[in-house]
Amino acid sequence: MNPEAQNNQFLINGKPSVGLSMFDRGLAYGDGVFRTFLVKNGVPHHWELQYQKLSQDCQALGIACPSEEELQSDIKALFKVGADAVAKIIVTRGESSRGYAVPDGIKANRVVTKSALPTYPLSNQTQGVKLHLCQLKLGLQVKLAGVKHLNRLENVLARMEWNDTNIADGLLMDSNDNVIECTMSNIFARFGNEFITPSLDECGVAGIARARIIENAAHFNLDVKIEALKLHKLMQADEMIICNSLFGVWQVIDFNGKQWPRQSLDTQLREMLLN
Amino acid sequence: MNPEAQNNQFLINGKPSVGLSMFDRGLAYGDGVFRTFLVKNGVPHHWELQYQKLSQDCQALGIACPSEEELQSDIKALFKVGADAVAKIIVTRGESSRGYAVPDGIKANRVVTKSALPTYPLSNQTQGVKLHLCQLKLGLQVKLAGVKHLNRLENVLARMEWNDTNIADGLLMDSNDNVIECTMSNIFARFGNEFITPSLDECGVAGIARARIIENAAHFNLDVKIEALKLHKLMQADEMIICNSLFGVWQVIDFNGKQWPRQSLDTQLREMLLN
Repeated sequence: MNPEAQNNQFLINGKPSVGLSMFDRGLAYGDGVFRTFLVKNGVPHHWELQYQKLSQDCQALGIACPSEEELQSDIKALFKVGADAVAKIIVTRGESSRGYAVPDGIKANRVVTKSALPTYPLSNQTQGVKLHLCQLKLGLQVKLAGVKHLNRLENVLARMEWNDTNIADGLLMDSNDNVIECTMSNIFARFGNEFITPSLDECGVAGIARARIIENAAHFNLDVKIEALKLHKLMQADEMIICNSLFGVWQVIDFNGKQWPRQSLDTQLREMLLN
Repeated sequence: MNPEAQNNQFLINGKPSVGLSMFDRGLAYGDGVFRTFLVKNGVPHHWELQYQKLSQDCQALGIACPSEEELQSDIKALFKVGADAVAKIIVTRGESSRGYAVPDGIKANRVVTKSALPTYPLSNQTQGVKLHLCQLKLGLQVKLAGVKHLNRLENVLARMEWNDTNIADGLLMDSNDNVIECTMSNIFARFGNEFITPSLDECGVAGIARARIIENAAHFNLDVKIEALKLHKLMQADEMIICNSLFGVWQVIDFNGKQWPRQSLDTQLREMLLN
């Protein structure tokens, strides 16, 4: 284990453990789901929304979701009051013998890990960020669209496309050339008062930050539309922001050879999300 | 761990271990590849082809493949002379902190597991098998097509579509309605002397059994064509077989409401593959 990972901690089904079984289907097939969120002063941020999404994602795969009480107990045991950190919950379908068939009576495994807060340049907030346009195109899969499952090789390969530390994330299109999301965030584009975020019916991950922005956009005089979005339209946006549960919101000021002037919407939305 | 899994055994990086790190990217993202093959009397079957494919798949994902010597040493340590069993090799990109970015100097982890031989009805060989037509359509992803990677949720969900023990496998089409493969096997369809197997340029797993049949088809007076195949054409095949490295070859005699007469090609190809 590398030194950085050694400083992290985890529980498997509520207990300290050395590691997951080699026969867990999470490793064998990516047969599971996960959530990543802030724990502030020992309290999971937007817990209700995180647990609701975890339950929905488990249901989408036919996995029995651990109870809210079990997970809250794990978080209480791992995270100290007074410190902020990142929690990741992984729920796998459980252990089985070799083969795709799911045995009767399989029992889901839950893993909760603790990691340090990510460190991002302050300029991401103050000046905005640059996005890479990914060559990899997301495949379409209606049975998995929107779900934060453990099959994330597309995100890994897309993230391998750049090494430039000035690039904050990469924009992903699907195989029909619709703009979908970024590798670790969702995207919104403003056209006047219209605030468009791509439809995630065929691929992509529907994040909590995205859901909260959709829910609260009216407070910012924005009219949210969830629809197909092409790159040529995105390039004409008055303003673009990306969001996730850890960094909140950043404005995109540099993408695909074009620059955008600095605005303040990202700051307002970030304050709404992180507070 | 369930009793069945307890009877299995595994090595991680050549050593007995209790389990893989929670921070291994194989679990976090399905960031790795695998192989499954017979070990007969302690000797891995078609090792050269298995290792070649493992290397190719590692290369496709930018993972440093373990050496042939390391893996052969693991197999020698786990598998006894005199007994037959199933080996599974998993190679993950390794451990990292949270996040899709791959850190410099990451070291791949290799896992070798031993499982009992699968038990299939003898009638699968003597009478042929029935296939289910899967509702799930495979997504297209040229960057992963053909690779046996750890992102196998599509296979899992497709396999969940049936419980009937008389069904041996499920046929998968892609989102463009091309016939591709089955959940755990590849497919060939014979039309006279033409032996068509679907092109796997956009999705699917290119198995070793498929490769060997392609290589040896001429010995059976078959002219292999690797091309797009639609369902309506498949239904008009004179004969259909499915293949993988564990069961070899089975004839499909019942699929999508149609029955096919029993033939002998499957037996000939199975003998070629398993011997």
